[in-house]
Amino acid sequence: MKLNCDMGEAFGAWTMGRDEEIMPFVDQANIACSFHASDPLTMSKTVALAKRHNVTIGAHPAYPDLVGFGRRNMDIAPHELKAIIQYQIGALQGICQAHGTKVTYVKPHGALYNTMMSNFTVLETVMESVSELDDSLILMLMAIPEEHHVKALAGKYGLKLWFEVFSDRLYTDEGRLTPRQQADAVHKDFGLIEQQVQQLSEHGTLTTESGKSLAVHADTICVHGDGDHAVEAVQRIRALVGKR
Amino acid sequence: MKLNCDMGEAFGAWTMGRDEEIMPFVDQANIACSFHASDPLTMSKTVALAKRHNVTIGAHPAYPDLVGFGRRNMDIAPHELKAIIQYQIGALQGICQAHGTKVTYVKPHGALYNTMMSNFTVLETVMESVSELDDSLILMLMAIPEEHHVKALAGKYGLKLWFEVFSDRLYTDEGRLTPRQQADAVHKDFGLIEQQVQQLSEHGTLTTESGKSLAVHADTICVHGDGDHAVEAVQRIRALVGKR
Amino acid sequence: MKLNCDMGEAFGAWTMGRDEEIMPFVDQANIACSFHASDPLTMSKTVALAKRHNVTIGAHPAYPDLVGFGRRNMDIAPHELKAIIQYQIGALQGICQAHGTKVTYVKPHGALYNTMMSNFTVLETVMESVSELDDSLILMLMAIPEEHHVKALAGKYGLKLWFEVFSDRLYTDEGRLTPRQQADAVHKDFGLIEQQVQQLSEHGTLTTESGKSLAVHADTICVHGDGDHAVEAVQRIRALVGKR
Amino acid sequence: MKLNCDMGEAFGAWTMGRDEEIMPFVDQANIACSFHASDPLTMSKTVALAKRHNVTIGAHPAYPDLVGFGRRNMDIAPHELKAIIQYQIGALQGICQAHGTKVTYVKPHGALYNTMMSNFTVLETVMESVSELDDSLILMLMAIPEEHHVKALAGKYGLKLWFEVFSDRLYTDEGRLTPRQQADAVHKDFGLIEQQVQQLSEHGTLTTESGKSLAVHADTICVHGDGDHAVEAVQRIRALVGKR
Repeated sequence: MKLNCDMGEAFGAWTMGRDEEIMPFVDQANIACSFHASDPLTMSKTVALAKRHNVTIGAHPAYPDLVGFGRRNMDIAPHELKAIIQYQIGALQGICQAHGTKVTYVKPHGALYNTMMSNFTVLETVMESVSELDDSLILMLMAIPEEHHVKALAGKYGLKLWFEVFSDRLYTDEGRLTPRQQADAVHKDFGLIEQQVQQLSEHGTLTTESGKSLAVHADTICVHGDGDHAVEAVQRIRALVGKR
Repeated sequence: MKLNCDMGEAFGAWTMGRDEEIMPFVDQANIACSFHASDPLTMSKTVALAKRHNVTIGAHPAYPDLVGFGRRNMDIAPHELKAIIQYQIGALQGICQAHGTKVTYVKPHGALYNTMMSNFTVLETVMESVSELDDSLILMLMAIPEEHHVKALAGKYGLKLWFEVFSDRLYTDEGRLTPRQQADAVHKDFGLIEQQVQQLSEHGTLTTESGKSLAVHADTICVHGDGDHAVEAVQRIRALVGKR
Repeated sequence: MKLNCDMGEAFGAWTMGRDEEIMPFVDQANIACSFHASDPLTMSKTVALAKRHNVTIGAHPAYPDLVGFGRRNMDIAPHELKAIIQYQIGALQGICQAHGTKVTYVKPHGALYNTMMSNFTVLETVMESVSELDDSLILMLMAIPEEHHVKALAGKYGLKLWFEVFSDRLYTDEGRLTPRQQADAVHKDFGLIEQQVQQLSEHGTLTTESGKSLAVHADTICVHGDGDHAVEAVQRIRALVGKR
Repeated sequence: MKLNCDMGEAFGAWTMGRDEEIMPFVDQANIACSFHASDPLTMSKTVALAKRHNVTIGAHPAYPDLVGFGRRNMDIAPHELKAIIQYQIGALQGICQAHGTKVTYVKPHGALYNTMMSNFTVLETVMESVSELDDSLILMLMAIPEEHHVKALAGKYGLKLWFEVFSDRLYTDEGRLTPRQQADAVHKDFGLIEQQVQQLSEHGTLTTESGKSLAVHADTICVHGDGDHAVEAVQRIRALVGKR
């Protein structure tokens, strides 16, 4: 089981996340591409940091919405969305090439991620974007019970998938995230987070909000790089899943 | 002698240039990368158009200044400028890859172009940016009498150069463009333009403002895609330099 | 009956609309505020032009989406939408103040306009934004059969309304615009446009797609400043509704 | 002697400065207008905060350069600069009007501030911008020995001035800030800061880098809202200059 984390989310004079402290403990860095966060210089520094720690680099493309951090849905036509995604992946590839490294995977961000997980037409547009550019790029998306369906779509576009789970989120019985407005949607307690990670790595299951056990296939766990206890949390999860 | 033209300078709902009509007559398309003009969808359409007409594709990176069309100087630190250039080239490469084609050369735009031609420290930063990314990319810049000096710099970074001349601009005795404020800086008369192109292709010389003949080595002539008579002008220049 | 027209939709080096030619024939200029189109300098020139022709100035606020020309829906929270609208109105007021003139009304643009006309919660947010800033500002919106309902809402916020109709659009029996995808949604024929305007000014009615006559109260007709025949169309509509 | 502080420099999801903690201790808030920092919602919250603490509100306009935080010089033509400044002041006025308060003064930010202090042609453009909009707005600028010259210019535009000094910067003998690259340019020691403030309030003088005593007329001291010890520093300076 790998750990992935959003990285390079600073923007100009504004900082975000503790990339320097967290990079050594993760396997995969989802690097923002300047549409929801980051800027070319921040991307360049983040790529250098990932390379220094031998961390696999993923593009983290988003809707063009800096002020909304890519968290707001936007009605973007499919052919424009494709160009937007290919532009962002390409831009990160350019920065990576200059650092003698490369983009291995793509994980959409924020509202684009949520939309593609709930609307498979959008998911297909994302898959087509990635596949047209380079079908050796892997698409990282949310582990859901309808895994076979998602895999069938990916097969159509010749794409390999990496499924991710969230260590600190409570899941519904359908294997979706409980909405953030719900009081217990995010685990604040380390104990709960550790238990969820342990159960995932040992048994490949999640305990849902109703107490059911749900089997999910996960390749990687999403951890968070901001917040007061981010570094400690990542280190503890790292310890549970084993050395890099 | 080749013809190059700035392309893909529309932005969202705004149009600019007559790309569709001009593309068939040029050899090299300098495609804007969304920092001074264009957007990912426009880039995608422009790449498709260039590919359809078998036109060589160049990245046309610029300072980040949409409202100023990249024509205003900006104090950008060298390490940031490098990231900005690599980001833009990479973004166009991504779009090209998705269309099964590629970026062959890089020609900086507007204020960045002018600054690098008058300040060789900036020129070196540009060269380093391109070379770090991919030293098989060719840098297109202005043909100047100090060609040997520019070539020596390029050699340091392992880069090949393409020199360009302007068909419709009056040159100083030093082989620079006369400033646009000067009344006769831009040839409005087709006769003058044709004469300048003919002299360039046949004798490899320019007649400067004082009437001197100046030898310049040029690989390509820059033509313009906007303006009322752009299409006719490009067709006549094409006729002079010979078939594609 | 007045004529209103979107104005100041250029952006930096890109032009749009024939403001100079059309301004003399309209009564009200909806001036873009740099969120979907325009920039401060364009706004300043457009305000000067409107003032020179004694045209009433309205703010034309939009979602923050330059590349999408404010035509794409965005999920913006009400308190943020309020700030966005107040910012844009204020910015135009600042430019107007510098020219010794003022903003008289507010007409939302594009997706924001469509959303507020179909979702009265958003309409209330717009009304509250305007009213908080200055309740002597008039809100311009679409004339719909549920006029009384809209007026009741406006009353709650102490706002006066101006209702507008479209001279070149086919209406549904419910008094809404037929969708643009429908073949006959936009009148291309001058005769049809003139007939619609004449019927509106003389009888206060529209003929809907099923041939029904629908009574609408309209204070102003929206005319268009771009397109090949824009100037002629505006002049002919001007002739029908009478001198300014 | 008043205290002024830059405020509202967050941008979307990114935070900056400790506005909530510092607002109670200052007299004047220089509020960013979304060109170098801030966004309409942040501006709205900052205006509400300033109003709650009865702090005088100033517009803090800048060059249009979010990623560079307005700290990079840009070649902007005077007539465009005027529109840019008037737009920003107007936008903040709009937000203030909605909160039942107003903009009292204008203090340019970053590179625009530095440029206008070293190039009086730019200073005149700034003065003209403010004066055209509303000549009851006060311009806040740097206290310099050539005060009479600056005052004469302001007189030409009917503007009142507020002069500011910096509590934590070492001055040259000419009354300018020593460049930041210089090791002792910024006082890190509280003792030095307190001494500089005390000398200013009691004797109206500064000790320059060569040890000379320089008389400066100052209406307000610029304090900083970010950095680890910002809150403590502001409180101590507040104590020295006396209660609000």
